[in-house]
Amino acid sequence: MSIGKPSEEELDRLGITNGEYLSAASQRALSWRRLDNSWFGVFEVFDLQGDLAYEEGIVRRDPSAIIRHDDRYFVWYTKSLGPTDGFAGDINNDKVFPWDRSDIWFATSEDGWVWQEQGPAICRGEPGRYDDRSVFTVEVMQHEDRFYLVYQTVRSPYTIRVKNEIGIAHAASPYGPWHKSTEPILKPADNGIWRGDEDNRFQVERKGDFDSHKVHDPCILPYRGQFFLYYKGEQMGEEITFGGRQIRHGVAIADHPLGPYEKSPYNPVSNSGHEICVWPHRDGIASLITTDGPEKNTIQWAPDGINFEIMSVIPGAPHAIGLNRTLADDTDPWTALSWGLTHQYMNDDYQYIRRFQGHRVTSHVAKGEQSL
Amino acid sequence: MSIGKPSEEELDRLGITNGEYLSAASQRALSWRRLDNSWFGVFEVFDLQGDLAYEEGIVRRDPSAIIRHDDRYFVWYTKSLGPTDGFAGDINNDKVFPWDRSDIWFATSEDGWVWQEQGPAICRGEPGRYDDRSVFTVEVMQHEDRFYLVYQTVRSPYTIRVKNEIGIAHAASPYGPWHKSTEPILKPADNGIWRGDEDNRFQVERKGDFDSHKVHDPCILPYRGQFFLYYKGEQMGEEITFGGRQIRHGVAIADHPLGPYEKSPYNPVSNSGHEICVWPHRDGIASLITTDGPEKNTIQWAPDGINFEIMSVIPGAPHAIGLNRTLADDTDPWTALSWGLTHQYMNDDYQYIRRFQGHRVTSHVAKGEQSL
Repeated sequence: MSIGKPSEEELDRLGITNGEYLSAASQRALSWRRLDNSWFGVFEVFDLQGDLAYEEGIVRRDPSAIIRHDDRYFVWYTKSLGPTDGFAGDINNDKVFPWDRSDIWFATSEDGWVWQEQGPAICRGEPGRYDDRSVFTVEVMQHEDRFYLVYQTVRSPYTIRVKNEIGIAHAASPYGPWHKSTEPILKPADNGIWRGDEDNRFQVERKGDFDSHKVHDPCILPYRGQFFLYYKGEQMGEEITFGGRQIRHGVAIADHPLGPYEKSPYNPVSNSGHEICVWPHRDGIASLITTDGPEKNTIQWAPDGINFEIMSVIPGAPHAIGLNRTLADDTDPWTALSWGLTHQYMNDDYQYIRRFQGHRVTSHVAKGEQSL
Repeated sequence: MSIGKPSEEELDRLGITNGEYLSAASQRALSWRRLDNSWFGVFEVFDLQGDLAYEEGIVRRDPSAIIRHDDRYFVWYTKSLGPTDGFAGDINNDKVFPWDRSDIWFATSEDGWVWQEQGPAICRGEPGRYDDRSVFTVEVMQHEDRFYLVYQTVRSPYTIRVKNEIGIAHAASPYGPWHKSTEPILKPADNGIWRGDEDNRFQVERKGDFDSHKVHDPCILPYRGQFFLYYKGEQMGEEITFGGRQIRHGVAIADHPLGPYEKSPYNPVSNSGHEICVWPHRDGIASLITTDGPEKNTIQWAPDGINFEIMSVIPGAPHAIGLNRTLADDTDPWTALSWGLTHQYMNDDYQYIRRFQGHRVTSHVAKGEQSL
């Protein structure tokens, strides 16, 4: 402990009975810099109406952020048809994941509850292109009257060892037409080495960087005059640790929305999490960390967009959140989380988009007369 | 960082791209002592059959540990009738919580799935006794051919500010008859001071120790020739922190199962958690920490029963677990968690007992061809 002798007031706030006898747990509690509850809160999830309600036989998942234009909300998402076959059959004709053989569609809504599907925005590329197999897990950025969609891409064949990449498209209107990048704007690190020829992602000679296998879940934020592309990395030879899957987040930075993007030497910027969920907050970047790793189910904040610290440890969070970009607010970290979209698994084959609502919890819930 | 320059191998295991540029997240990752996944795992929950299946109008909750005797399993639990009224009405006639106006019942099973309710084991005391209002949240200990039930007690009136205490009973057979202690064996700390006379648990002049309001969820383990009574403390003036509710665990130690129990000067021994779930493991004590606080959803272990360290961060856990004491095993931390009982809220009024099963996860699940 390098924090010096705790004051009586600190001990009282931490509920430590006797400052002369600190258990290991009390020593950890003393190392927490803050007890401020402004970042603590909870989520609820609700069904949508209209075209985004659950539909048999159709996958709709990984909603983008929500933007507002022409008096309505816009969202983009992954859409595919039919069940998942997995990798055991003929991968040239099967659908190996729910997000395989997908295109990116969009929908609009006046109230955020009832949605009208408008049609495809980004379709898979021609055979031989880097995006010829699937385009999916899209995010949207509106910047200086242009619109940018950034998304994952896979080139055929979709093997287990295939390396996902990231593409981008831009348009003058959220209705398109969209101009796709001719090459990926981000690729996995190339310093991992597979062991043998079996199509197995756990057999490696060398793992390489945290993002040596896949770059996933891209999200671009304009920040300090540059563009921060946050993404999830998956590593060749990924392991299960004491916190579950080895999933980390990185950031790549560019001077222009279309790139070139350079990966930060400080990567990874999170050692935990799954889908990227980031938003600007008080001159820094906030990040919701879910699902995987020792710091899962935390909300973090980085004053510089790089060095994230844990601000709260929450009971859980909806997955694959698409934030409502109209809500950002510097005063309360939960304003940006007050509502948006998420996806939910009906089963392994089919996922559908739902609405989440979140709110801060600063005092005890009334249930049971202040005694939850 | 006082850990010195990390080796290339450490950096590789942590997926850190560049040891010269460590993000805040990577610095935290380097401070983790272990990546060993032997403590990581997941739970599933299932319905029971027989008398412990959900029953309309009846509360059955907070199952004790399971013991085996006469070729069958035994469990004890809180049982009450009818809906919860809360504190707004006439508390002298209303039921203020689902665990108010409860008695402790028990059931037996040959296979752990189909249970037969056997009747009451511990009933509320005569008017004026320390347990005259409710007895609930029981644990069982079998030691040297005697059986001990330890449980929460409330004396009327059940106000919001009432101070729960802990009682004990013993018998030569799990069928009873049970001999109840004439006085509580553990009480809340008496060094908090309420502010004003309103029946409000958040208005305090002084909070006092972590257990100044309530001592909950007792569980006694024989350990190193003594008896360690683990319990949950609730503090007068409890707050919401960055990790949610201020809930901690303490331990009180005695030379005899019936006491006297002396609270450890090292309390609290956990700064997080809710119901107590502890078991002996490799000369130490393991503890499942759920629901509340910054370290919720972790499994911890203390080599001395006092100084608990985080061994894994899990996705979540069933609440109010009753461990199966026949399963403890020093080789695998998850053996003790492989099956047991839990409770679930059907709604605010009614809870019922279910079965959980848990298992280690050391490699990726087969779902989706090794690509979960």
